[in-house]
Amino acid sequence: MSYADLTDVRLEQIEADLRNEYAAYCSQGLALNMARGKPSKEQLELSRPMLDCIGSSSLLDAEDGTDCCNYGAMDGITEAKRLMAAIMDDRPERTCVFGNSSLNIMFDLVTCGMLHGYRGSAPWCTLPRVKWICPVPGYDRHFAITESYGIEMIPVALGETGPDMDEVERIAASDDAVKGIWCVPQYSNPSGITYDDETVRRLASMPCAADDFRIFWDNAYCVHHLDETQAAHVADIAQACEDAGHPDRYFKFASTSKVTFPGAGIAAVAASEANIAEIKQRVSIQTVGYDKLNQLRHVRFLRDASGVREHMAKHAAILRPKFELVERMLEEGLGDTGCASWSKPVGGYFVSFDGMPGTAKRTVELARQAGVTMTGAGATWPRKNDPRDANIRIAPTLPPLDELEQAMKVFVCCVKLASIEALRNER
Amino acid sequence: MSYADLTDVRLEQIEADLRNEYAAYCSQGLALNMARGKPSKEQLELSRPMLDCIGSSSLLDAEDGTDCCNYGAMDGITEAKRLMAAIMDDRPERTCVFGNSSLNIMFDLVTCGMLHGYRGSAPWCTLPRVKWICPVPGYDRHFAITESYGIEMIPVALGETGPDMDEVERIAASDDAVKGIWCVPQYSNPSGITYDDETVRRLASMPCAADDFRIFWDNAYCVHHLDETQAAHVADIAQACEDAGHPDRYFKFASTSKVTFPGAGIAAVAASEANIAEIKQRVSIQTVGYDKLNQLRHVRFLRDASGVREHMAKHAAILRPKFELVERMLEEGLGDTGCASWSKPVGGYFVSFDGMPGTAKRTVELARQAGVTMTGAGATWPRKNDPRDANIRIAPTLPPLDELEQAMKVFVCCVKLASIEALRNER
Repeated sequence: MSYADLTDVRLEQIEADLRNEYAAYCSQGLALNMARGKPSKEQLELSRPMLDCIGSSSLLDAEDGTDCCNYGAMDGITEAKRLMAAIMDDRPERTCVFGNSSLNIMFDLVTCGMLHGYRGSAPWCTLPRVKWICPVPGYDRHFAITESYGIEMIPVALGETGPDMDEVERIAASDDAVKGIWCVPQYSNPSGITYDDETVRRLASMPCAADDFRIFWDNAYCVHHLDETQAAHVADIAQACEDAGHPDRYFKFASTSKVTFPGAGIAAVAASEANIAEIKQRVSIQTVGYDKLNQLRHVRFLRDASGVREHMAKHAAILRPKFELVERMLEEGLGDTGCASWSKPVGGYFVSFDGMPGTAKRTVELARQAGVTMTGAGATWPRKNDPRDANIRIAPTLPPLDELEQAMKVFVCCVKLASIEALRNER
Repeated sequence: MSYADLTDVRLEQIEADLRNEYAAYCSQGLALNMARGKPSKEQLELSRPMLDCIGSSSLLDAEDGTDCCNYGAMDGITEAKRLMAAIMDDRPERTCVFGNSSLNIMFDLVTCGMLHGYRGSAPWCTLPRVKWICPVPGYDRHFAITESYGIEMIPVALGETGPDMDEVERIAASDDAVKGIWCVPQYSNPSGITYDDETVRRLASMPCAADDFRIFWDNAYCVHHLDETQAAHVADIAQACEDAGHPDRYFKFASTSKVTFPGAGIAAVAASEANIAEIKQRVSIQTVGYDKLNQLRHVRFLRDASGVREHMAKHAAILRPKFELVERMLEEGLGDTGCASWSKPVGGYFVSFDGMPGTAKRTVELARQAGVTMTGAGATWPRKNDPRDANIRIAPTLPPLDELEQAMKVFVCCVKLASIEALRNER
C-alpha cells in the first residue's frame, strides 16, 4: 500500500523503524560515493594494456608518415579521425580529434559563439541576451558552461523519446536570441533515454529564428550499451540536418573518456565541412596541436569499430550487475510506497530518480549525513534549480557491488524518510 | 669590403656569380626547412625512454593516492606541479599543470580577459578598444592570439636586455586600454636575448593605467641552454611583482614541448594565489581535467630539476653544433658585406637575422624558390608587418647538420642577391 494511503499512526510506526535503521547507518562511519559518472577500478583495468601499445621501441609515425612525437597534424592523425568518425557515425574528413576532453571542445565552441559568432553571424557577446534550450533532467556540466557566460537557460522536459519537441520548436522559432540546445541523444545523462528518429528529424528540420542556432550533440554514451541485445542507436543528426537543408546546424561530440581512461582519453568533434573549416581556423590560433602519441596509443589499442565493440562489451559485463542491483533495490525498497519513480536505462552511466516533490534536497542531505555522497539535488537542472525538488541522479558505476548495495540501502531509507516527512507536512 | 662601398661594375660581377650559384641550387630540387622551432629526430629520440615509464603493470597512482586513470585533480597531480614549479622558479601550490600546450593556456587566459575580465575588472569585449604591447621581433603565435581578438598591437623594440622599457612604461602608463604585454623573457623568440634584472624590476613596478594589466611571461626556453657554462637565468617575475606591490600582474607559462615531445608534453601556468584561484574556477567549467597519466609519465622520466638539467644537456649537445654552424656560415658568408647582422644566442631555438631594409621578403622568396622554407618574412612582427622588411627568423634545430649546411648556403646566397638588388635600386 502506498505511503499516501496509510494512516498517521501507521506512518509514524514506519518512520520510527526507519529512524532506527538510519541511525544504524549513521553509526557505521560509511564513506560511499554515487555522485559522479566515474568508471570503477575494475573497468579501468580493462584499458591498462593500451599503455603498452606505445613504447620506446615502437614505430611512432602515423600511417601518412606524420611523426607523432613532433608538432603537426593539429586536427588529429588520420587513423584517429577514422576511429572517432566510426564511433560518431561520421566521415573522417569532417572529424577533428583534439585533446582529452569533449567538454573542453564544447566549452571552446560556446566561447567561439560568444566572441566571434559562427560563420559570420554576430558574436553573442554583442547581443542584449542569449538563450539556450536545456532538456531536463540534463547534465550539470553542460549547464555550467552556458551559465558561466550568462546565457539564459530554458528548461524543456525530456521524455521517453527526447525533449518535448512541441516546446523546443516553439522556443526555437519564436526568438532569435535562442542560439542552441544541449543534447545527450543516446542514453541521456541522467535519464538514459535515446532520442527517437522523429525527434532527430524535428530537431534538424524545425524553423529557427536564429540563423546561427546550433545543436550541441554530445553523444557521450554512443557505444556505452549495457546489453548489446537491447542496444539503442540514435539516428545520425548530420544526415538529418543535411536532409533538412540545415547542414551547419549541429556539432557532434564524443570521447573515449569512458572507453579507455577518463582524463587520458581522446576527444573529437564532427561537423559540416564549413563548420569544420571554421573550427580548424580558430584552433590553429589556439594551439600548435594536441597529443598525437595518445591518439596513436588509442588507435593501436581499439583498432576500429569492431575493436571498440569488443572492448565495450567488457565494460558492460562489469556495469550490468550494478544497474540490475540498483533497479532491484529501488523496486524492492520503494516499489509499493508510491513515493518514487526511476529510469531503467539500457546504456549510459546513470539512473534518473524522481522522488515526491520537495524531497530531493532532503534525501541527498540525509544520505550525506549517513556517509553516502549523491550528485547534488537540483544538479540536473539549469542553475541547480529543480523547481519540483524531485530529481536525483544516481551514478552506480564507481563503487564495487558490495559498496553499491550498502549505499543503495542507505539511499532507499533516506528516500522513505524524506517522503514521510513530506507527507506529514502536507497533512 | 662592404657591398655598399663597391663600384657598380664590381657589384654586377658579384651578382652574376651569385645568379649562377643560385641557379645551381634551384636545379637541385632541394626541400629543406628552417621555418619552425621543431626539435630534430635525434632530439626526439632522447625522450623515447619516457614511453616505458608507464606500462600496463605500473602503479598508476599519484603520490597522494589520486588514481591517474580516472577523473580528478583538475589542476594537476602534486608531483607534476612540483616538477613544473621547479622549472618555473615557483611554488607548486600556485602552479597548475594543464594540458599539452602552454600556448593554449595563454589563449584561454586572453579569452578569459575578453569575456570575463580578471578579478572583477570589466570584460575587454565590453570596452571600445583593447591594446597590447608586443616586443619585436617576437613570436608569431603570440601575435596571432591578440590579433584574433581584434586587439591593437603596439610594437616596441626588443634590445639586448629586453624591450625598450622607456617606451613600455610610457605606453602602459598612458592608456588604460593597454591590458598586457607578450614576453619571452629568456632566450627570447627569435632574438635569443634574456631580460636583465633591471628590465624585470621595471616591468613589475611600472605604473599601469589599467588595473588589470598582465605580463604574459612565456618562459618557453627557461631550461633550454645551448651551453651550461654560459647559461642565462632570468629574474623571477613573481618575486619582482610581489616586491613592487603588484602581485597579480603576471602569468608565468612553461611546457615540456621542447624538453620531451612537442604536442605530447605537459604545460603549466603559475600565478598569484588570487589569479590561480580564478583560473581554477574557470577551468573547472571548461573541463573535468587533463591527462594525468602523461603528467605521471613526465615526472617518472624527468624526476626533478636535476633530472631536467641532465636531459637538457643532451639536447644542447645536439643543438650546439647547429647554432655554431649557422653563426660560422653567416659570418663567413656575410661578415664583410655590411648587409646583415644576426643574434648569437646562448639558448633557445632561433637566430634572429636582420638584412638590409626592404630585403627580408625578397630573401625568403628567393630561398623558397630554391627549395628552402624559412619562417615568413614579417612573422616576427604583429600582423606579419615588419615596417623595415628586414627581420627573418632562422630556425636551425630541425634539419640534420648536412641539410642545415646546405640550407644556410642557399640562405646566404639569397641574402646577398636580395641585398645587391636593393643596392642597385637605390643607386
